[in-house]
Amino acid sequence: MNIGIIGLGLMGGSIAKALNAHHTLIGYDLNPDAIDYAKNHHIIHQGYTKLAPFFDEVEVVYLCLYPQTLVSFIRDHYHEIPKTIVLIEISGIKSELIRRIKKIPYEFDLIFTHPIAGREKIGVSASTASIFTHANYVICPMDYNQNEHLDLADQLAREMGFSHISYLSPEKHDTIIAYTSKLTHVLSLALVHSDDQSFDTANFIGDSYRDLTRIAMINTTLWSDLFLHNKQHLLDKIEAFKASLTQFEEAIKNDDEKELIQLMEAAKANRMSLEKEVNE
Amino acid sequence: MNIGIIGLGLMGGSIAKALNAHHTLIGYDLNPDAIDYAKNHHIIHQGYTKLAPFFDEVEVVYLCLYPQTLVSFIRDHYHEIPKTIVLIEISGIKSELIRRIKKIPYEFDLIFTHPIAGREKIGVSASTASIFTHANYVICPMDYNQNEHLDLADQLAREMGFSHISYLSPEKHDTIIAYTSKLTHVLSLALVHSDDQSFDTANFIGDSYRDLTRIAMINTTLWSDLFLHNKQHLLDKIEAFKASLTQFEEAIKNDDEKELIQLMEAAKANRMSLEKEVNE
Repeated sequence: MNIGIIGLGLMGGSIAKALNAHHTLIGYDLNPDAIDYAKNHHIIHQGYTKLAPFFDEVEVVYLCLYPQTLVSFIRDHYHEIPKTIVLIEISGIKSELIRRIKKIPYEFDLIFTHPIAGREKIGVSASTASIFTHANYVICPMDYNQNEHLDLADQLAREMGFSHISYLSPEKHDTIIAYTSKLTHVLSLALVHSDDQSFDTANFIGDSYRDLTRIAMINTTLWSDLFLHNKQHLLDKIEAFKASLTQFEEAIKNDDEKELIQLMEAAKANRMSLEKEVNE
Repeated sequence: MNIGIIGLGLMGGSIAKALNAHHTLIGYDLNPDAIDYAKNHHIIHQGYTKLAPFFDEVEVVYLCLYPQTLVSFIRDHYHEIPKTIVLIEISGIKSELIRRIKKIPYEFDLIFTHPIAGREKIGVSASTASIFTHANYVICPMDYNQNEHLDLADQLAREMGFSHISYLSPEKHDTIIAYTSKLTHVLSLALVHSDDQSFDTANFIGDSYRDLTRIAMINTTLWSDLFLHNKQHLLDKIEAFKASLTQFEEAIKNDDEKELIQLMEAAKANRMSLEKEVNE
């Protein structure tokens, strides 16, 4: 089918690469360089910097914009978008996004999804379909979504390589992702930020530090957006994390080896069970 | 030369693998299965479960034991170890270890070093020399160490593949490693431990969560030992981390996008500078 991509960045480019073997990919981006790059590298078959020709050619469109930009894009252009088009958005936040978009009287079907995948790079030149292989995907169905469009989003996610697709309410999505993704990024940033730099850190790190801090090389515009628009859940998860950290701290402070090993064994068992599920 | 390995576990096996192409490797372990495995897989050339023949054949010996076991090994066997032998220990803690070992009237030269490398597996069967490639190594020279023995430890570390060797006091080593290694492991454990498990976590994680929590699959015996024997520095680093986390938390709580982005940009720049040094 003819699949459109609005926003040829890391995610838009990766989705195009993951689907372009069996579909015709058509890109839209304000930046002509991104279009040229994507065409020259056979990521998309056709590309536009104007909406009119773009919407004439597509049946389903992935909206690959940052949450704030996404809302203003729909507010500014909803009247130019044909009612028959299925739009699939892919942000990492849902409740607040949906609250804002609800106010816009759009008439096309808009599907809310979250591919849980990415990398610490930006731009179409960093795109790669491999980030989707065996990854997790979430769809937040709205009561006004048409079933066949939800099925289409599901089917295309599987074609991209996602191996587990969950259906969740926006609220539940935001709670879960505040823990698995947003808390994780905040901890990585806070770890790097707590370096007092009294020594040349690079000479004393191993793979554990490298792995924990890789995501500190963050897209600050996107992630401040994601943090602030899922604020309450994220603050709750930070509190829960602090309580958990305090348990380890107390066991160490009190030389309580038994309690410390118990905490470690519990965390280890929890993480290993996850590993098994991941490998399945 | 004839190099001995006391303790054929993950680290002992990896050191043997990293050196056995150009040296004769001789193992000592209480467990005959570890000796058999290492011989059958050509990791060592010869192996013993008794100390007498072992020390007859070696010139330099890597002590690959957990810190607590290391102290009791030296206490119990120092009188059986020839004075001419160079022993190189490889634990992740130094000050407390040296304080305890100092009380033992041994006469051989004992070099304190820390290869900053490892993996989340245990035993000789999980050993691999690749963990040392381009990794960091620390040597804590004592005033009673002979220079030629320090040079030997340095030379062998380079042969194993380590690319940066630092010379530090035990105190400074413990301060730095409390941040780069021990804090990192505590955070990973506390993150997994803070999972309220109200949902099936495996379906909602991406690579960022996987990377941050891999080291929670920890060797609990070894690491409780490492945490408790570097207690004060680790507690200091946990406090510093909490203060850093609170800065992010406050920026999010106050919807202070400017401050949040500033914090993120600083952490990002810090981590990227590290990446450049790592790649050099």
